[in-house]
Amino acid sequence: MRVFFNARHDAHDVKSEFYHGHIIPPLDDPRRMGIIRDALAHKISARLVDPADHGMAPIWAVHDKDYLAFLAHAWQDWQQAGYDGDAIPAIWPAHGFCDGGSLPGDDVTRPGDMTGQTPASRHILKKLGYYAYAIDTPIGEGSWQAAYWGAQTALSAADAVLQDGEASFCLGRPAGHHAHAARYGGYCLLNNAAIAAQHLRAKGVERIAILDIDQDHGDGTQQIFYHRGDVLTVSIHANPDTHFPFFTGYAHEQGADAGYGANLNLPLADGVGFAGFEAAMAQAAAKIARFNADMLMISLGVNGHEFEPFGRLGLTTADYEKIGGQIAQFGLRTLFVMEGGYAHDVIGENVAAVLAGYLAGVRNVADT
Amino acid sequence: MRVFFNARHDAHDVKSEFYHGHIIPPLDDPRRMGIIRDALAHKISARLVDPADHGMAPIWAVHDKDYLAFLAHAWQDWQQAGYDGDAIPAIWPAHGFCDGGSLPGDDVTRPGDMTGQTPASRHILKKLGYYAYAIDTPIGEGSWQAAYWGAQTALSAADAVLQDGEASFCLGRPAGHHAHAARYGGYCLLNNAAIAAQHLRAKGVERIAILDIDQDHGDGTQQIFYHRGDVLTVSIHANPDTHFPFFTGYAHEQGADAGYGANLNLPLADGVGFAGFEAAMAQAAAKIARFNADMLMISLGVNGHEFEPFGRLGLTTADYEKIGGQIAQFGLRTLFVMEGGYAHDVIGENVAAVLAGYLAGVRNVADT
Repeated sequence: MRVFFNARHDAHDVKSEFYHGHIIPPLDDPRRMGIIRDALAHKISARLVDPADHGMAPIWAVHDKDYLAFLAHAWQDWQQAGYDGDAIPAIWPAHGFCDGGSLPGDDVTRPGDMTGQTPASRHILKKLGYYAYAIDTPIGEGSWQAAYWGAQTALSAADAVLQDGEASFCLGRPAGHHAHAARYGGYCLLNNAAIAAQHLRAKGVERIAILDIDQDHGDGTQQIFYHRGDVLTVSIHANPDTHFPFFTGYAHEQGADAGYGANLNLPLADGVGFAGFEAAMAQAAAKIARFNADMLMISLGVNGHEFEPFGRLGLTTADYEKIGGQIAQFGLRTLFVMEGGYAHDVIGENVAAVLAGYLAGVRNVADT
Repeated sequence: MRVFFNARHDAHDVKSEFYHGHIIPPLDDPRRMGIIRDALAHKISARLVDPADHGMAPIWAVHDKDYLAFLAHAWQDWQQAGYDGDAIPAIWPAHGFCDGGSLPGDDVTRPGDMTGQTPASRHILKKLGYYAYAIDTPIGEGSWQAAYWGAQTALSAADAVLQDGEASFCLGRPAGHHAHAARYGGYCLLNNAAIAAQHLRAKGVERIAILDIDQDHGDGTQQIFYHRGDVLTVSIHANPDTHFPFFTGYAHEQGADAGYGANLNLPLADGVGFAGFEAAMAQAAAKIARFNADMLMISLGVNGHEFEPFGRLGLTTADYEKIGGQIAQFGLRTLFVMEGGYAHDVIGENVAAVLAGYLAGVRNVADT
C-alpha cells in the first residue's frame, strides 16, 4: 500500500500538554510517526511517498480564512506579546458570554466581541480563546508548517486513490478530525480528511463517505459537512457523556438542512469490546451502502485499544485486523487518514493490523 | 469603618494557577487578606466584624441553581473521577460548537449538548467546561466554603450600611465581579457585590449603583444586571482589546431591554494614569447622579497600581486616596466590596488609601 508520509510532521514539536490540572509531556509525541512507519514497513508492503504541494486553495475550501491566518501567525504573535513557550488559550467566549444576559438553556448567544479590530490586529489571547475549544493543543514554532504539510499529504494520498483506485494511507501529524472549519482542539489544527474529501468533490467524485473509527467523536469532520448531503459522516466512538469531546457525538446529531440524515453518530459504552464495535460497524456499513458512496475515507485512530492511555473500548490488535477486513467489504475506493493512537508499544502494530486486514480483505473480495 | 471579614476565605487555598502556558503559584494568594486587614488596622479605624449566615436564599436570588450545585460539589466530583489536585477545565462548548454548522459571525449557537443526563450526573469535565470561561480559577477542597462565606460577608456588610447609613467594607476572597449568574473565571466564583445588591433591593432599596474600579472589566456584574433598569452598573477598566477579560468591557455594551442605558463601560488606555482615571470617574459620577441612586456599591480593586503584576493604568497610592475622596463626593450610602489586587507590598496601603480618602471626604462633606 502507498503510504504518503508527512516528513515535516515533527516541526509540530510542542513542549507540554495541559492535562487534568497538570502539565505533562505531550501525548501527541512526534515519535509516534516513526513507530507507525516502521511497523508498516514490516507488516505490509508499504511504499513511502512524499506529498506534492497543492498550495492553500484546497485548505481555504474547507477552513475559514481568518482562522488560517491565525494559525499561521499564532506562535509569532504569542512571542511578540512577550510570552514564552507554546501558545495556549487562557480565556474563551463561552456560550452567552458577551450578550450580558443569557443563561444555560438560552439558545441565542453572540460569538465573542471582536469589535474595533481587524482579525490580524487582535490580541493573541483573544484569538487563541476564540478559535480553541480545548486546552490540550499547544501551538509551537513549527505547528503551522507541520499542519500545512499534513493537509498536503492527505491531498496527495487522495489524488493517488483517484488516479488508479488503489487504496492509500496518509500518515501524518497533527491529526485532523477534531478541527472544525474555524476551531481547533484535541491535538488537531487542520482537518486533513475533510480537506481531502472536499478536494475529491472538486475533482468530480460525487458522493463521499467518511467513516471515523478513532475512539473520539470526529466532531470537526461532522461540523464541516453537517449541512451538506454530498459527504456522509459516520463516527464510531466512546460515549461523549463521559469521554472527550463531551459536547458532541450524540446519536441525535443527524445533520441539518440538505445534510439531514447524512451524519451518523454511533457512541459505544465503555469496555464494549469487539462485539459492540462490530455491531456499530454493521450499522455504519448499512448507512454507507444506502448512501451509495463513490468513495470511502477512513479516519483511522487506534486509541480504542486495550493498552491505550485513554482506551475505553477494549479492542485488541486482532480486532483491529478484523475491522480492516470489514472496511474492505464495503467494496469502495478507500483512503485512510491517520488520526489518534498514543501507546508507543502497540500503535504501530495496530495501524498495521487495520491496513493488513484491509489488504487481505480486498484480496479475498477479488478471489471470490 | 466597619470591616466585615471573611475569616474562612483561606479555605480557598488552591495549589496552582495556569498562566500563559505555565503553572505558577496562584496570584490570588490567601495572604492577601491578612495584609489588607493589617493595613486597615493601622491606617483607618477599622472595626472587624464577623459575618452572619443568611443561608442560600440570597445567593439563589442571583446565581443559577444548577451552577451553585456544581460549585458545591465540583472538587468532590473531580476527586471521584480519579483526578488529583485542583479541578480545572480542559474543554469547553465554544460558540457554535454543538450545532455542527455555525462559523464565526453566525449569531445563533446552542450552549453545549447536555442531552440525556441530569445536571448532577454530568461528568465533571463537562460541567467544568460548561461553567468556566477561563483557565485561571482552580476549584479546591474548600473553595465552595470560602465562596459561601464571602457572599455572607457581603450580605452582612450590606445590612450594616442599610441599618445606619454608615459605610462598610466587605473584605474577603474569592473576589466576585467576574462571576456571572452561571459562569466563573478571573478568580471569582460567586458575585458578592451582585448578591449584596439584590439583597438590598429585596430589602426595599429602590435604585442601586455599582461602580467597579478594579482594573479588569466587571463582566459578571454587568451580565447579572444587563437587562435590568433598577441596578446601574458602571465599570472603569483597562482596554479589553489587550487585557482580560478580552471579550467584554466595550463602550458599546450599554444594557438591554429594561436595562438599556443602565450599563456604562469606561475602558482606559494603558498607562493613562490618574488624569485619565479622573476623567472616567467624572463620567461615572455624572451617570450615577442622573440615575438617582439610593445607594452606592464600590467593587474595589487596586490592581491598576503601578507596582501591580498586571498593572496597566499606572496609578499611585496617592491616586487611590484621591479616588476614595471622589467616591465620598457622590454623597450616597456606600458599601465597598473587595475585588482584585495582587502585589503584596502595596495592596494593603492601596486599599487603605481608598477607604481613608473616602472617610476624609465624608468628613469634608459633613464640615461644609
